[in-house]
Amino acid sequence: MKLVSVLDTLYLDPQHVAEIIRTRSLASCLAGMVDYIRADFLRWEEFDKCARVANHSEDGVIELMPIADDVSYAFKYVNGHPKNTRLGLSTVMAFGVLADVDTGAPRMLSELTLTTALRTAATSALAARTLARRDSRVMALIGNGAQSEFQALAFQHVVGIEEVRLYDVDEAATRKLVSNLADSGLRVTVCASTAEAVKGADIVTTVTADKTYATILTPEMIEPGMHINAVGGDCPGKTELHADILRRASVFVEYTPQTRVEGDIQQMPADFAVTELWEVLNGSRSGRHNADEVTVFDSVGFAMEDYSALRFMYDAAIALGLGERIALIPALADPKNLYSALTQPISRTADVDRIIAAAR
Amino acid sequence: MKLVSVLDTLYLDPQHVAEIIRTRSLASCLAGMVDYIRADFLRWEEFDKCARVANHSEDGVIELMPIADDVSYAFKYVNGHPKNTRLGLSTVMAFGVLADVDTGAPRMLSELTLTTALRTAATSALAARTLARRDSRVMALIGNGAQSEFQALAFQHVVGIEEVRLYDVDEAATRKLVSNLADSGLRVTVCASTAEAVKGADIVTTVTADKTYATILTPEMIEPGMHINAVGGDCPGKTELHADILRRASVFVEYTPQTRVEGDIQQMPADFAVTELWEVLNGSRSGRHNADEVTVFDSVGFAMEDYSALRFMYDAAIALGLGERIALIPALADPKNLYSALTQPISRTADVDRIIAAAR
Repeated sequence: MKLVSVLDTLYLDPQHVAEIIRTRSLASCLAGMVDYIRADFLRWEEFDKCARVANHSEDGVIELMPIADDVSYAFKYVNGHPKNTRLGLSTVMAFGVLADVDTGAPRMLSELTLTTALRTAATSALAARTLARRDSRVMALIGNGAQSEFQALAFQHVVGIEEVRLYDVDEAATRKLVSNLADSGLRVTVCASTAEAVKGADIVTTVTADKTYATILTPEMIEPGMHINAVGGDCPGKTELHADILRRASVFVEYTPQTRVEGDIQQMPADFAVTELWEVLNGSRSGRHNADEVTVFDSVGFAMEDYSALRFMYDAAIALGLGERIALIPALADPKNLYSALTQPISRTADVDRIIAAAR
Repeated sequence: MKLVSVLDTLYLDPQHVAEIIRTRSLASCLAGMVDYIRADFLRWEEFDKCARVANHSEDGVIELMPIADDVSYAFKYVNGHPKNTRLGLSTVMAFGVLADVDTGAPRMLSELTLTTALRTAATSALAARTLARRDSRVMALIGNGAQSEFQALAFQHVVGIEEVRLYDVDEAATRKLVSNLADSGLRVTVCASTAEAVKGADIVTTVTADKTYATILTPEMIEPGMHINAVGGDCPGKTELHADILRRASVFVEYTPQTRVEGDIQQMPADFAVTELWEVLNGSRSGRHNADEVTVFDSVGFAMEDYSALRFMYDAAIALGLGERIALIPALADPKNLYSALTQPISRTADVDRIIAAAR
């Protein structure tokens, strides 16, 4: 090893991730991500968890979402700026890092804008597979924006949904979704209102963008046995469900301390009863009790799901030989001689495993 | 603009940062960074501040340090793994991001291992220029590891130090420091003990690595009028100064809530009196009162200094035309059509300013 080299970090940009998804197929990636997320939920207590850290400004928020187990550390950077679309930018942009807990070395830097859409849909589908009636075939999809294709396809491939009933206040968004689902094999019905879309559905997914205390779903729309996948109410001041729906349903969440602040249950008292999804997955608490019960998955997105998604993309990229190598960190033959990085040429990218092997 | 493009982010790896430092000279970069840090301390109340977020494990810690003002957001990823040197890896590795508060778009991803060494030394020198006796010419430097060259040179160029008196329990570290300072113009004296190095010094810098409640400096070593720059005691369980030194001195800190947990004052009661450096810089509180007073800068490193350092490196890289462009974020002509990133070729890197200009 040269006196000064550089630790290499796998780097996945949006093109690499799109290529992984095209190569493996979106259906296979969604199913794979469901498996990774489920496996991590099953070892929930091994994770060092905390609520996200947010810096709020006039037009939006920038958040960091760190989490770790004994082996890997992950964090996601994600913003939320509703006015961005007027500037030609996305409302939500994200990237993240996967690192080794035992050394702190960053293993991978990856885009997480596309990846988050997959992980959110995979988590929703995992929750619905666990909580919805087994014979669910029809899903209402309220909100036809950036997340909607991923939700529709995850529910098709993981839950067995055959028909989606679409509604959005923005007709252009619905037209875009219809076009993108044209070859999916799903039966697609465009509806004139939320009530029309919801009527007769087995599962109702709300993934609307309005940053207000909105009431997308009202109690009279809800039929016995429905499962509600409430995705859009995901930050303080942003909700989608009428409180009476929550009162009458069984409510399931990812990580209670975060969902009480960010989820639809922010409307409810602090002692409002909820069940964490991992408890149902590992069998310690029950999910749906009967075919008439209304279940709600109050999803806000938790750091562990990004950890799972980063691991999935890391494994897929290594298996397919995709991605680039970048140098975030200087690696020094004498770690006490950082100054030498200024005076000596730095040799490019050294593999962390080779450095450790050479030191042993 | 294509339907799908990618936001470009300036990327600085350790080689780019080393090239900036070599091109501008280390002395000029240290002086420049002092100016950036001072300017940000002077508008302290404009920052949205929080303590760092840490994930602790058996062998170390991984931390995120976010901060923002109304214009820019920054965070640093940094680890601390004392056993890494046995593996051929650095104890501390860091990188970070500078982003726009009004859109959340990441402007720059940069290495921060080298940059942190400069910002820590620049902060120390700024504090000493503010708190030490004006006629300070001799500095004891206890701990001759990765940070020591940067401390010595920052004090030479910013504070006017002419002689450094070195001591480290590891003689090889001292030899490395002597060699690296050979052409600096500093008078360099190697000492046989901490007491010998400290005797007669105007400023005492402690930058030792031992992860314990160490007592590097004891009360009988301290002479009237000394300024102590205590850099190494920077996390819970890690201190360098005997508590009696703190009791008899005037103690200055960066951000009190963080220093009470991480700094040498973790040994003191929660109401132990300290002054924040920004208050002295803006004239609202006094620094040194007379030539006999002992002043202590209990430095732990605060996110705002990384914000300043990232801004400095960003401006320098733009001015010199250094760095690369990477694509962390897909930029969509229709932000509601994220799915199109899977089905259409992504055009490479678009400048965020051009995207915003095109949208207007």
